[in-house]
Amino acid sequence: MIDKDLRPGERALVDDPAQAAGDASLVFIGRIRSPWQPGAPRPKNPTEARASGEASHLEIDPPFRPGLDGLERFSHVVVLAWLHRARRDPIVIHPPHADAPRGVFALRSPVRPNPIGLTVARILSVDHDRGIVTIDAIDFLDGTPLVDIKPYRPGIDAIPDAVVG
Amino acid sequence: MIDKDLRPGERALVDDPAQAAGDASLVFIGRIRSPWQPGAPRPKNPTEARASGEASHLEIDPPFRPGLDGLERFSHVVVLAWLHRARRDPIVIHPPHADAPRGVFALRSPVRPNPIGLTVARILSVDHDRGIVTIDAIDFLDGTPLVDIKPYRPGIDAIPDAVVG
Repeated sequence: MIDKDLRPGERALVDDPAQAAGDASLVFIGRIRSPWQPGAPRPKNPTEARASGEASHLEIDPPFRPGLDGLERFSHVVVLAWLHRARRDPIVIHPPHADAPRGVFALRSPVRPNPIGLTVARILSVDHDRGIVTIDAIDFLDGTPLVDIKPYRPGIDAIPDAVVG
Repeated sequence: MIDKDLRPGERALVDDPAQAAGDASLVFIGRIRSPWQPGAPRPKNPTEARASGEASHLEIDPPFRPGLDGLERFSHVVVLAWLHRARRDPIVIHPPHADAPRGVFALRSPVRPNPIGLTVARILSVDHDRGIVTIDAIDFLDGTPLVDIKPYRPGIDAIPDAVVG
């Protein structure tokens, strides 16, 4: 384990995924347009983002815009984004809210080997020509690259009685 | 648009993401061990997988195993996998169940520019030493590479009244 800027109990991977050749390549399909700028105050999670009352946009690049056909049939969308500012080498971290260090796969922190952020948002409108999906809220920074959009299907995605320890 | 093995109404990207240099690199953190082999019958979706009564496993590689610390506190897990057998260039496809072609971002098909599969499963057990998370069911093929695991949080992930068009 490498000890760089780690707090007690935290652990990092020996091989930083950010420096690795990698096993697969992503293409960015667009970016998030949100009110949240780096260094400024912003919501800590989707619930806070929603409480802000600030809508956001998913901006899809021209080649990928036909992929939006039919998305307007759904009320909610799953957004997968590449959290490009997050460290990828810590594997156990101690978040401020936790009583002890925890593994990154037991946290929703952006810090993880593959910093893919996942959030669910309500679709307000889909502009197919301009490639803009307007959503009710998101807690990701303005400019965050998008890697995928999926329709939310409550039959497989909603588990209201799931337990959080 | 390139016309290779496309049905009427289907469209493909000019630049196949599978051939592109890419904008970001993923590292595989392990793989799925499921009963489903390529070429054999398998469930079409998570609901069918669950109906099969067949448990599956998420096998995490040694360097990433500390990342599982604390996952046992949660009842359900979000699994992100790299659907390595899927074509990445179609952007509008006509699935057998649909009445017309649709954009891949309006479908849960594995076919999409970044073939990241998303599914939610119930955690049956977590073996930290061996890096094995046993889950109730998954519809992904045996051997599918894993890219991320997240705890499922119903407060942000469960939207039971979401509408499917």
